[in-house]
Amino acid sequence: MDRRSFLKNSTIGAGAAAGAAALAAPAYAQGNRTLTMVTTWGRGLAGVHDSAQRVADSITAMSDGSLTVDLKAAGELVGAFEVFDAVTSGQADMYHGADYYFVGQHPGYAFFTAVPFGMTAQELANWYYHMGGMELHDELGQIFGLKSFLGGNTGAQAGGWFRNEITGPEDFQGLKFRMPGLGGQALGKMGASVQNLPGSEVYQALASGAIDGTEWIGPWADEKAGFQEITKTYYTAGFHEPGAGLSVATNRDVYDSLSPAHQKIIEIAAAECHQWNLAQFLSENGSALERLQSGGVTMRTFPDSVWDAMGTAAQSVLDENMGDELFKRINDSVFDSMRKSSEWINASEGTYRQQRDRFLG
Amino acid sequence: MDRRSFLKNSTIGAGAAAGAAALAAPAYAQGNRTLTMVTTWGRGLAGVHDSAQRVADSITAMSDGSLTVDLKAAGELVGAFEVFDAVTSGQADMYHGADYYFVGQHPGYAFFTAVPFGMTAQELANWYYHMGGMELHDELGQIFGLKSFLGGNTGAQAGGWFRNEITGPEDFQGLKFRMPGLGGQALGKMGASVQNLPGSEVYQALASGAIDGTEWIGPWADEKAGFQEITKTYYTAGFHEPGAGLSVATNRDVYDSLSPAHQKIIEIAAAECHQWNLAQFLSENGSALERLQSGGVTMRTFPDSVWDAMGTAAQSVLDENMGDELFKRINDSVFDSMRKSSEWINASEGTYRQQRDRFLG
Repeated sequence: MDRRSFLKNSTIGAGAAAGAAALAAPAYAQGNRTLTMVTTWGRGLAGVHDSAQRVADSITAMSDGSLTVDLKAAGELVGAFEVFDAVTSGQADMYHGADYYFVGQHPGYAFFTAVPFGMTAQELANWYYHMGGMELHDELGQIFGLKSFLGGNTGAQAGGWFRNEITGPEDFQGLKFRMPGLGGQALGKMGASVQNLPGSEVYQALASGAIDGTEWIGPWADEKAGFQEITKTYYTAGFHEPGAGLSVATNRDVYDSLSPAHQKIIEIAAAECHQWNLAQFLSENGSALERLQSGGVTMRTFPDSVWDAMGTAAQSVLDENMGDELFKRINDSVFDSMRKSSEWINASEGTYRQQRDRFLG
Repeated sequence: MDRRSFLKNSTIGAGAAAGAAALAAPAYAQGNRTLTMVTTWGRGLAGVHDSAQRVADSITAMSDGSLTVDLKAAGELVGAFEVFDAVTSGQADMYHGADYYFVGQHPGYAFFTAVPFGMTAQELANWYYHMGGMELHDELGQIFGLKSFLGGNTGAQAGGWFRNEITGPEDFQGLKFRMPGLGGQALGKMGASVQNLPGSEVYQALASGAIDGTEWIGPWADEKAGFQEITKTYYTAGFHEPGAGLSVATNRDVYDSLSPAHQKIIEIAAAECHQWNLAQFLSENGSALERLQSGGVTMRTFPDSVWDAMGTAAQSVLDENMGDELFKRINDSVFDSMRKSSEWINASEGTYRQQRDRFLG
């Protein structure tokens, strides 16, 4: 973690946001409003751009245009990784993105996308909406002058595309691999040379040999990215993002200036999209997986020895951040919630799925 | 299925709804509106009443009171099982309930709650929001003058409470058991004497010996109902409701008279509650399961021979309804969607959960 970067951004964010509020507050009280939403996604990027667009459209439609959201995709106003600063500084009103891109601002943001060996999408929803997650997101947001909500989810992400089969943890030694967030840091501990490239640059890097492998999202988005043209070796289960949440964050002074009805519209539109987007990925992934297999792609699973090494590396990355009080508090809340909700899920739905799939064949 | 009941209700519903529209349409165009929502739940019933209340409150809040929903719990305006007729006839504006209570009106309604050996809550969301489910719900609703949306989910329901352990399918012979929907019909084929009691009557029936066993929902709601005071034998996984959806249905003439913004508010409020309610049940079930076990309740799993008999009976119940063209079309859509989305879910999240739980212990 880069603590200087965190402190620097924190100060800039708070100052700039206060300035924006002082300038803009009177205007906010009158008539129809247009909010500019910047995103970490290129326009049209499968699933992820869709969820940003859905949140924007739901807000506009439910408010009958009295709160119109104008979506600027990555590069149209600011770059993918610049959206956080754009919103904290008041240059844009809200962003839609994956909060783990902002672990440089605060490492606790990782938990609102995904951490390795952490929560599935359903466990994330359980925690976020009923076991303290939303309140902790809010506490993080207050540091930077943001009001954040979950607003999308990719589901469990694929382990990724590799040029060669992985037979043991030693195969990660020196492997040039694209993976963001704490998952990428964990792969680094296993000896990989990890890179964090935005989606638009990954295909070329893999095709040119600049990287040896990459994870992206799952069959649907990966197929659109075209990785199957470069390699046929696809690991379906990954350790790094078991249910990656996407977030909608509004400049806090902007949010505070809205009516309670408009605030509720943003909250419910974002939450609805968390479910809609997850269901979108899962419904599209099935057909895409069939097409990929027909095209010669082989589905593979890492051996237990690799999962063990990934688990150890993941724990080590989390441990390194425990010196930050808020990070530790979020971590403990996440893993406590996960343990509490997973026993029942296994005993009910887990057993059911196993018996159903056995019977139906 | 009672086809005469279906036809009778269909005719009454359509006629009464048209009458209500002719009378009320002019009033609908002006100013603030109050919609009366009736429910199939007693006031305060854990989880299920909560979800009805949340949909009502979200609509009221997002519309800034211009569309205020007044919730009447079961018995406050009409009885639990009378809500369908109340809304189709225009006596109430909307209902929140479990649509499988209305298989007498049309057997296709079963799919919008749950069918035995059918979809989990996530598979239901995949189908409903992205693979044609919502459109089929709409087609069913048009028969009766309703506009329906999913608006809650209990998650996978427990197998239920039994006085004695179940060692094979023969133990269901003559067993007096409470279970609604197609699951109950399937148990009937296994020789059980099946009863469909509303939630408020189940405890007394079990305590008095009028029934030998019951399913209700899961640890949290079951604990509140107090079944652990009567027996300690609890089957955690059931075959009958692997992810029971709850619905919000609005009288179609009322719905059509609303502005597009108000229509969108109802749609998004209902969908948001599908996720919120599922997460609520799953977050509460964990702690409740711990308390039940501390109190001496034993978690049990049906043997494979019972699952096989349940699967055969479930298929037979579905087959009996295939003469209805719409039922068959919904059935085929559900099982096709389930097959398409479940392979990826198993290959990604399924493998991940298994490896994570193995590593974390």
